[in-house]
Amino acid sequence: MFKKILIANRGEIAVRIIRAARELGINTVAVYSEADKNSLHTILADEAICIGPARSTDSYLNMNAVLSAAIVTGAEAIHPGFGFLSENSKFATMCEEMHIKFIGPSAEIMDKMGDKINARAEMIAANVPVIPGSDGEVFTADQALEVAEKLGYPVMLKASAGGGGKGIRKVESAQELVPAFESASQEALAAFGNGAMYIEKVVYPARHIEVQILGDSYGNVVHLGERDCSLQRNNQKVLEESPSIAIGKTLRGKIGDAAVRAAKAVGYENAGTIEFLLDEKTSQFYFMEMNTRVQVEHPVTEFVTGVDIVKEQIRIAAGQELSVTQDDIKITGHAIECRINAENPKFNFAPSPGKITDLYLPSGGVGLRVDSAVYNGYTIPPYYDSMIAKIIVHGENRFDALMKMQRALYELEIEGVTTNVEFQMDLICDEHVIAGDYDTSFLMETFLPNYNKEND
Amino acid sequence: MFKKILIANRGEIAVRIIRAARELGINTVAVYSEADKNSLHTILADEAICIGPARSTDSYLNMNAVLSAAIVTGAEAIHPGFGFLSENSKFATMCEEMHIKFIGPSAEIMDKMGDKINARAEMIAANVPVIPGSDGEVFTADQALEVAEKLGYPVMLKASAGGGGKGIRKVESAQELVPAFESASQEALAAFGNGAMYIEKVVYPARHIEVQILGDSYGNVVHLGERDCSLQRNNQKVLEESPSIAIGKTLRGKIGDAAVRAAKAVGYENAGTIEFLLDEKTSQFYFMEMNTRVQVEHPVTEFVTGVDIVKEQIRIAAGQELSVTQDDIKITGHAIECRINAENPKFNFAPSPGKITDLYLPSGGVGLRVDSAVYNGYTIPPYYDSMIAKIIVHGENRFDALMKMQRALYELEIEGVTTNVEFQMDLICDEHVIAGDYDTSFLMETFLPNYNKEND
Repeated sequence: MFKKILIANRGEIAVRIIRAARELGINTVAVYSEADKNSLHTILADEAICIGPARSTDSYLNMNAVLSAAIVTGAEAIHPGFGFLSENSKFATMCEEMHIKFIGPSAEIMDKMGDKINARAEMIAANVPVIPGSDGEVFTADQALEVAEKLGYPVMLKASAGGGGKGIRKVESAQELVPAFESASQEALAAFGNGAMYIEKVVYPARHIEVQILGDSYGNVVHLGERDCSLQRNNQKVLEESPSIAIGKTLRGKIGDAAVRAAKAVGYENAGTIEFLLDEKTSQFYFMEMNTRVQVEHPVTEFVTGVDIVKEQIRIAAGQELSVTQDDIKITGHAIECRINAENPKFNFAPSPGKITDLYLPSGGVGLRVDSAVYNGYTIPPYYDSMIAKIIVHGENRFDALMKMQRALYELEIEGVTTNVEFQMDLICDEHVIAGDYDTSFLMETFLPNYNKEND
Repeated sequence: MFKKILIANRGEIAVRIIRAARELGINTVAVYSEADKNSLHTILADEAICIGPARSTDSYLNMNAVLSAAIVTGAEAIHPGFGFLSENSKFATMCEEMHIKFIGPSAEIMDKMGDKINARAEMIAANVPVIPGSDGEVFTADQALEVAEKLGYPVMLKASAGGGGKGIRKVESAQELVPAFESASQEALAAFGNGAMYIEKVVYPARHIEVQILGDSYGNVVHLGERDCSLQRNNQKVLEESPSIAIGKTLRGKIGDAAVRAAKAVGYENAGTIEFLLDEKTSQFYFMEMNTRVQVEHPVTEFVTGVDIVKEQIRIAAGQELSVTQDDIKITGHAIECRINAENPKFNFAPSPGKITDLYLPSGGVGLRVDSAVYNGYTIPPYYDSMIAKIIVHGENRFDALMKMQRALYELEIEGVTTNVEFQMDLICDEHVIAGDYDTSFLMETFLPNYNKEND
């Protein structure tokens, strides 16, 4: 096992990793920007090294600075968390070259799954259902028209090298297609230096279902069931749960097997997530993409399976075998996570950094967990993500979990900054959410318009 | 199910019960003394009623005041927590007379198990092993000599109506016996109005092993495995764990069956604990006493079984069947609890009430729970128990749990008052504790003398 690892991240995920490492008896090195001198990850780690100014590009995204910190402190491995350098294959390669273990998959696998057309092809070869679409790249608007006609409208045009919503267009009809193709392709060329596009049918209505997988360096791969992350605002997840109300035992087996097949096909190592769209009416699911890192919402899976995903990541990177087999994994009860953000839901969710003047985090009782990077008197800096805490509950069943979440949000007090706590309370008390009756469009198209009306 | 219950307690257990009730959709009424106006249970409950001055006898032990609060607020049931009125059969009777459900066993069962000679006789009849001793009461020193000779020294002289350490003597030889008997009997007469004594052989070395049981009003009784509470200072538990390192699967079955037999023999209803002494060498266990209430250390059992004991108590009182059968109950992983007290271990554990000027409770990650009644800025009043928080961890195995507890205590910060956090850290880092190699005498006779020497 490693003696010392560096955590190349900040916020609650950095704290989460420091805690897991400490429990494994591993010393921890935090890196921090000038704005994060008093952040919890900086305080809790055994060592902490400043790697630059507040702006992420000058610190948390500065690969040389992060690697230098690892070398100077003698860290044997780097955990990248999520965001920042976590899916940066160049950084993974640099780590490899410096003989520092990157806690995640190899650069090669990251590249393979990062290229979306390539990932699609890999999945088709592995017999994992993908969204009906073009066979590989589409080079001209005429070609695009032909493909779209076959698929039926609406379709999505997507940049092969896409990301961050760039080079993506939803097209409702043939008339719209030609101009949309031209502009999307040019946008992609400008953004990624690559104008290649592909086309997918629009799956709608759909649920966002993702399957957590773990693979070790001995070829063992297991899945830990699914998470339902359909409640999204601007493609940002807001509330996640496991299991999904839309998935029964048989479908869980099928989608889980597909995820394991996908991971095995690319020789995947470490923790990863296969994201699917699910057509609830037909129970047909389609591969969307793979995230080659730990995810924000991993705790709901930890609650229902009992598996510590971050510890498994570290163990896998250290060359150990998975501590569980597929047969060991049972889904018990129901877990829900609410993301608590320093933002103003009544002002278009504008970030609201500032000083926390009083804080009470809910605690105690059975099945409650708070992953957070805040403390009383902490000043949330304006430079980063607005997520400051995750409230995660585990109930005997879904209703019990909802009641627990109500209890937790009722207790939660964050003074000094505006947060989305009340918004989350309204959301979990919504009749559709209580019934589990929602798809990926629900929050934006049904809940938010009503919410905004009531809060006008 | 009840619509409203009153919690006749304070501190972390009152908060624990309020949380459980809220999660069940039940409204809560807190009662508080004048000293507890700003206590967390007073703040968190839906309603709160002041029942008198700070002294417990004037408030939390004032049965009329508590009952009046229940009647005024329309509470249908009263949860007594532990301590205070929780084992007071007179109070249970008064509740019954006012048609308010006492969340616990009936007054009759409390009395049956509260009389120690009677409890012994019940256990012998139910084929539950008791400590070898006298058959019922011993009236004269001569009778006592005869019994002690048969048992072999050392023996314990105990008052039949005993409690709080009164009327109890350890006797090493025949010479000591006569004067010890006379003084103990007189002490018992003065304290309880009853000089009746009984005699037990001293079981030493021994572990304190207790079995959690749950019984409903339909005659169903299950046990939830054991807790090892051998680490005690002056008969006060300091650290508890489940399962016990001294108990394997076969012995767990035997001692669990004995506990269920004991509960069934007396028609026990609600949550209770059967305390045993275990002779580790022979694996022989002996009934000590039954606690007819929830216990401080119930969370370790909740962690390893997944059963919410407080919710089960409320459900049972509401006339529901147990939500689990014996077959459902599996012991998973290992849980440890450390009691955090506002006290000074370097000054003979003197209580240290006062204002908490800064507070950080550990949180997050897998398998950590903090049951507490403190918050930042809270003033711990001097009138009550010094326990202010319980840190409970759940690991894959015992070593993992110990590592988690180290992590949690490392993070815990309570400024403004002296606490036993460092003492607990030293204890869980002690080689005997790490090895699980301790009995009921370990803390007082081995650990504390060394600790005091080092901290001189």
